[in-house]
Parts: sequence; C-alpha cells; structure tokens
Amino acid sequence: VDNRPIGVFDSGLGGLSIVSELRKLLPHEDIVYFGDTGRVPYGTRSRETIIKYAKQDIAFLRSKNVKAIIAACGTVSTNLPEDYPSGLDIPFCDILRPAVEAACRSSVSGKIGVIATTASVKSGAYGRTIRAVRPDAVVVENACPLFVPLVENGYIERDNKVTKLVAQGYLSPFRKETVDVLILGCTHFPIISGIIADMLQDQILLIDPGTEVAKKARSLLQEHNLFSCRESEGHTDFYVSDNPSSFSQIASIFLGTEVTEDVVLVDVDSL
Amino acid sequence: VDNRPIGVFDSGLGGLSIVSELRKLLPHEDIVYFGDTGRVPYGTRSRETIIKYAKQDIAFLRSKNVKAIIAACGTVSTNLPEDYPSGLDIPFCDILRPAVEAACRSSVSGKIGVIATTASVKSGAYGRTIRAVRPDAVVVENACPLFVPLVENGYIERDNKVTKLVAQGYLSPFRKETVDVLILGCTHFPIISGIIADMLQDQILLIDPGTEVAKKARSLLQEHNLFSCRESEGHTDFYVSDNPSSFSQIASIFLGTEVTEDVVLVDVDSL
Repeated sequence: VDNRPIGVFDSGLGGLSIVSELRKLLPHEDIVYFGDTGRVPYGTRSRETIIKYAKQDIAFLRSKNVKAIIAACGTVSTNLPEDYPSGLDIPFCDILRPAVEAACRSSVSGKIGVIATTASVKSGAYGRTIRAVRPDAVVVENACPLFVPLVENGYIERDNKVTKLVAQGYLSPFRKETVDVLILGCTHFPIISGIIADMLQDQILLIDPGTEVAKKARSLLQEHNLFSCRESEGHTDFYVSDNPSSFSQIASIFLGTEVTEDVVLVDVDSL
Repeated sequence: VDNRPIGVFDSGLGGLSIVSELRKLLPHEDIVYFGDTGRVPYGTRSRETIIKYAKQDIAFLRSKNVKAIIAACGTVSTNLPEDYPSGLDIPFCDILRPAVEAACRSSVSGKIGVIATTASVKSGAYGRTIRAVRPDAVVVENACPLFVPLVENGYIERDNKVTKLVAQGYLSPFRKETVDVLILGCTHFPIISGIIADMLQDQILLIDPGTEVAKKARSLLQEHNLFSCRESEGHTDFYVSDNPSSFSQIASIFLGTEVTEDVVLVDVDSL
C-alpha cells in the first residue's frame, strides 16, 4: 500500500489524455502531471535533446516523491534508451510497449501500421518493439508532424477541411497497404481519430495508447503492491514549464473536462 | 572601424532570411547566427518565457564578442521590454520597428494590416509602435500560428492546397477591411508571400521585415562607425541548440542557398 502520487509527464498537454484514462481506471490515486510546455513540441527534435529533456522531466517528478512514473509522450517513449527504466528504483511505463502489445494481439494479418511524430518514426522503436513481440509482423510507418499543431490550434472537428486534406496525404500508405491495425503513436492523434478513421477502410482497427497505458499502470501498481488505500477520489496536481495562462483552453481538449485545480509554473532548466 | 561579427539570433531558423538580406547589403561583415532550435517555436509561448529565452540567446551572442545584435525573430521583437536595448552597450535592432516604419511610409489610407504569431499579436506591440509613428493609423491584426509549422514542413508551393486553405481563413479580415499594406510580422511568412498575395487584392503591399532590418543594421553600423574594413567576403558561423542533423534542410528554405559551413551545437540552458 502506498499513498504517494503517480507521476505523469509529457512534452506538453497531450499526455493529459492519459491522465483522463488513469482517473477512470484508478480513481483513488493521486496524480502529479508535468507538461513541458516551455519546450513543446519534442517530436521535431533530435534524439539527444529529447533524452536530455525527458531526464529533466523525470527528475522533476522524482522531486515530487512519486511512486511510479508514466512517460505519457509518444516521442519520449520511442527515444529513451531501452535500458532506461533499469536505472530507476520505482516502476516506469511508457506508451510504446502497451500500444504495441495491443496491436500485436489484435492484428490478424500481422501487417501493423504506425503513425507518430517525426522523431518517433526516425527512432525505429516501433518496428523493433513490434518485431520483438511478433517476429512475423510487417510494419508500415508514417510520420504525421502537422497533426500536432493542427490539434493544438483546434482544427479537430470531424469535417475540418484542412485536417482532412493533411490526413489524406499522411494516410495514403495505409490505404495502399493492407494493414489491419493502426497505432496512434502520439497522444495528439486520438483527438482526431474520427478524421483518421474516415480516411481508412472500415476494417482497420485504431489503437489508442491511452487506454492500454492505463491498464499497464494498474497492473504495475498491483505487481509492486502500490495501490493507494484511500477511499476518496484522488486529486491531480498540474505543473507546467511555461506560463499557465493558456493551459486550460488546450488542456480541456485532451482531458475532456475543464481544469479547476491550480496550475503551477516550474523552472525545468534548473533541474 | 570594427571587424568583429554582427550577432543575429532567432527562435529557430526563420531568422536566416535576415542573414540572407544582411549578406547582400553588408557583404564584408562576419555574422554569428544563433538559432534556438532546441526550444523553437517561441510564438506560442508566454511573454515571460519568451523574454527569458531571448536574454539567454543574447547572452550567448555576447559571449561571441559581437559588435551589434539583431533579434531576427518577430516574437522576440514584440515581447522584449521596450527599454531593453538601453541595458546593452552595443547597437541592438529588432524586426518590429523597421517593418513598422516602412509600413507607415507606404500606407496611403493609414489602415495597416499585421499578421504575426499568437504571442506577437497578444503583445499589442505592433499597434503601439504603429500609432507612435503614425497616430492616425488604424491597425488590423490577425495571428497566423499554423503558417510556422506549414512552412517548416515544406508546404510552401504557391499551389499548396493546405496552406491556401489555412491562408484563406487567416486573411479574411484583410479582405473585408481596406488595409493597403500588410506587415509579414514573422520571418516564416515571406516564404509563402505568393500564397498570401493570391488571397488579397492586388493593391495591398506586403512588407517583408528582412529587407528593412538589413537597411536598419547598415545605418546602425554607419552611425556607430562599426563597418568592417575587410575587403574579402565575410563569413557566417552557425550555432543551434538542437542537434544540427536536420539543420541544412530547413535552413535552405530561409537562406536560399545550401549551408556548407559547420553548424555547432550549444547548450543554451547553461547561459
């Protein structure tokens, strides 16, 4: 039993979609969320910079005495060294492996599609991880860098012409190839899953990492005997590295509700 | 006479369009360029964060012993405190005032349009500066945040359907209002000036800050007797805060030529 909070971090606010899933599945747990809004996005940066920033984000969460850490960022999940969790003395989980496991379980044909940020695709991590779970798999990947600013600028309605036009270009490899599952490998992408689905054949299953990560987090807490014994609802503390003035507006896109809690500004450089 | 280099900085690589203009107008000058590619873009961040980052960028250039500094970033130009240059003992120039002066000179009707990043529009600096130069002016502003990722992702051809569709939305206030000049208040926007022009009536003059800033820099050097006495061509040193691997590809969009010089990675946090 452990009443300390679960730490969740992301390059920005996309990881709040994971917080939303965690709250549903683990309602008695406290959560500390850190969004590196002062340096978002990570998906266009080099691997060295992504690792440097992620380590600072993790150091910040550790300073908040968390019992487990979730990297709720597709780009961090694909770029952290594979042995990274081994250096931590608390459970650690990213969004890569839970999504890959769900995709490998669900795919009949073994042809698995992945859309993600440029840095995630460049890392090759999806291909490596999918083939480690299912050696016969064929992986088709495409980077969709513009989806991130489109979502953050609110171009998310299912009939949005701009996002539809961009999606048409990005998703053409999945219309030609006969993948039967498609991993939405960035926390921004589930927000426009309707548009993505409209561009693809009906029989392609979309994998949203959020649901899978929340299940993985629950099993990690169980395994390490870290469930909270609280009977009341847990609360979430929000920290960001840029001025929180525009936080609520973008946060509600991902969280599905308004943020009524305080949002605290932290200086992540100094960590 | 002073053979030290001119320092130029930007949130990323957009400021290279200013370097291109400087090279034309001041061919014997050395230039030190710093692009904060590890934290780009600035245009979506808060004023506090923009000022903090800009001061670090300026500190880096000072460490390179420059004789003058140009803030080649629209967002920095509109968010630095108005008295900021007074703390510096070398000439300082941003892209706001030269563009505003050109617009005020060129406008017949006194109705002046401005497109810029969200942070620039929020700052109110264009309105204040335009009315300081021309008190009768009417200013119409609109933020165009998606133009930045569209340009950086290469959606720049004049017939690009996505950029045209986004531009149509952003530029509608300038079709209704009868502005006769439009300031392109972000270094990314001149790259798609063809698309912007196609959306507007022929009689609207587009102001590209690059040309104006280069002229301003030349007059500052003259005023302070800082011209280089070199007769050979000056060279440019490039510094960035993210891994330079993808530098050349994006840099050539703004610079108009390939970058053959070395590009050096610096740790801007430590400044």
